Amino acid sequence: MTTSEAERLARVTLSCGVEPGDGTTSALICQIGAVRALERSLVPKPDSLLAERLASIDPVRQLEQADRCGIRFLVPGDPEWPTELDHLDDAAGDDGFGGTPPGLWVKGPMPLTALDPAVAVVGSRAASVYGVEMTRMLCDHLATAGAAVVSGGARGIDFVAHDAALRAGGATVAVLACGVDRVYPAQNRPLLQHLGSELAVVSEQPPGSAPTRRRFLARNRLIAALTTGTVIVEAALRSGALNTAGWAELLSRPVMCVPGPVTSYTSQGVNNWVRQGRGTVVTHGSEILELIGRAGEHLVEEPRGEERPRDALTRVEQQVLEWVPVSTPAEVDSIATHSSLHVRETVGALRRLRAKRFVLLEDGGWRLAPDV
Amino acid sequence: MTTSEAERLARVTLSCGVEPGDGTTSALICQIGAVRALERSLVPKPDSLLAERLASIDPVRQLEQADRCGIRFLVPGDPEWPTELDHLDDAAGDDGFGGTPPGLWVKGPMPLTALDPAVAVVGSRAASVYGVEMTRMLCDHLATAGAAVVSGGARGIDFVAHDAALRAGGATVAVLACGVDRVYPAQNRPLLQHLGSELAVVSEQPPGSAPTRRRFLARNRLIAALTTGTVIVEAALRSGALNTAGWAELLSRPVMCVPGPVTSYTSQGVNNWVRQGRGTVVTHGSEILELIGRAGEHLVEEPRGEERPRDALTRVEQQVLEWVPVSTPAEVDSIATHSSLHVRETVGALRRLRAKRFVLLEDGGWRLAPDV
Repeated sequence: MTTSEAERLARVTLSCGVEPGDGTTSALICQIGAVRALERSLVPKPDSLLAERLASIDPVRQLEQADRCGIRFLVPGDPEWPTELDHLDDAAGDDGFGGTPPGLWVKGPMPLTALDPAVAVVGSRAASVYGVEMTRMLCDHLATAGAAVVSGGARGIDFVAHDAALRAGGATVAVLACGVDRVYPAQNRPLLQHLGSELAVVSEQPPGSAPTRRRFLARNRLIAALTTGTVIVEAALRSGALNTAGWAELLSRPVMCVPGPVTSYTSQGVNNWVRQGRGTVVTHGSEILELIGRAGEHLVEEPRGEERPRDALTRVEQQVLEWVPVSTPAEVDSIATHSSLHVRETVGALRRLRAKRFVLLEDGGWRLAPDV
Repeated sequence: MTTSEAERLARVTLSCGVEPGDGTTSALICQIGAVRALERSLVPKPDSLLAERLASIDPVRQLEQADRCGIRFLVPGDPEWPTELDHLDDAAGDDGFGGTPPGLWVKGPMPLTALDPAVAVVGSRAASVYGVEMTRMLCDHLATAGAAVVSGGARGIDFVAHDAALRAGGATVAVLACGVDRVYPAQNRPLLQHLGSELAVVSEQPPGSAPTRRRFLARNRLIAALTTGTVIVEAALRSGALNTAGWAELLSRPVMCVPGPVTSYTSQGVNNWVRQGRGTVVTHGSEILELIGRAGEHLVEEPRGEERPRDALTRVEQQVLEWVPVSTPAEVDSIATHSSLHVRETVGALRRLRAKRFVLLEDGGWRLAPDV
């Protein structure tokens, strides 16, 4: 058994025995390696059953069982390991919650190297029609442009994000709070099974694990860490999507916010983040690509508003138009004076503007046509 | 005739003869006073009819005519002169467009000293239901809190802003692009007449003037300059409301943006300003008051989301709840281990959680109740 194989097996044991988001153990692994971290953790401590739990784990058997289900276990150093995850070592949340997981359990043929670039798209389970529409539009654009869409496989925005990426023929990965062999929520069984057989489903939890609230919170940090930036489409003030965005912030990755109506419950959390200056407003997939791209890539043109007929007028015509009254007609002399143009020039411009239906000639005076 | 009276009459003449937004004349007045600025402007120049126009104006008669219509003319130094306007001296837009107007024509009993504090609330004429709803909510709050609402008397957002302030019994002023004796647009006749007889209507244009596109642009700078900050409720990408916001920006006054759906045409301009970091998101009147208030006044509490039943649980109950699986029931031992609590403590917490309908006991195991 090579050292790296010992390291891998120690990581399997720690992955199976230690709860996700245990920052203390992660820090220990980071400092002294998994083999020694496991040795230390196997020393019984008065108020903890951790040592007992770890001692009961047979990592070889765990790997064999996983392999039979088509599940692989990735550790740092593997070619497929997403090195972006390692940044979690330096980003611990409250109470030391966080840290890089000992390893990742992956089901599905897509190598995680395909997560480059990858964008997290997250939001409310109770999505509105607006949120669904925006998620489809953004993820379709991202997938078509070759960016992988990472989300949590939940109902609502998560589901639509995966689904839109799939429909566009793009790459998409669900990061779960339970084992990758399990289906949660049950409604998304077809989606999760499809991802597990055609693309990839990922978890730091060993196969068979059930989801708990704490595991959802731990899972959120992986969504943020696996991607270059996080898009929040819809989120109430206490939404889990904001928890994911918080991890992105902690990792100094861009948080992108889709603004919504102030009156919409599911946009309140997003608008509030924008208000606090914690996220950049995005309104189109191209703006996301610009934010996650390397400097100078995917530059977005300033939105310019639609062209108006007025834009096609000559400079003189535009100048004259500025001084044509909206309601009560004015005589040519008055318009010429204000425009600082000769009367003949003004008359010519007014006639052309009339032919183009910008102005009306009424009672010997000129006024703007309605809706100019 | 005192000097200040000569100055006043010169300002009347300049106000009647020079187009609004003529930054060159404004700068001249600022440098050498209105009497000498008028003298210089009365010297005929080859390509301009300005001197001729100015020479034809009888300022005393203009004032008398205005007075008969209940219209007064304010100049700098008058107790009612809004000194905030003087900041326009230092803020010229493109092509020298801008500057402080020579004076203000005012109709209505409300002194302009009531514009303290004052907020500009502007937006699309083609307002959406959402925009109307938000404008009502914000202006009702502002007016009730004693802030004057300044807008342009137009259809759409402007109308609703004035109307909501009136209904709340607050102060509101319309700044027009035509003379204050005129009504534009015609649909708003009842509103504008009410403001002119009960509150105030303001213009830099002398009575009788017709509105032109250029005069609307000049008017926008007054809306921004008369107020402590400008709120854009709804605006398309090329909306006049953004022009007003641009003046607020030039004057270093806060621009406040009400975010809206990306899919709404009339929110695109607002969202784009937020995206560019040119405006602060506001979602409630109290946030506007905080931004325009003196430091430390009107502080807004962070929005916290609604309280959840879970918030009322004890620390131990919450700790246990974190580790109760969402779907497949888990045994007490497993939950106790993960919670780092004694089994007896865990059982007690689970029983209380069950009584409060947070968890279910199924097949000898515990799982979360639906929707916890």
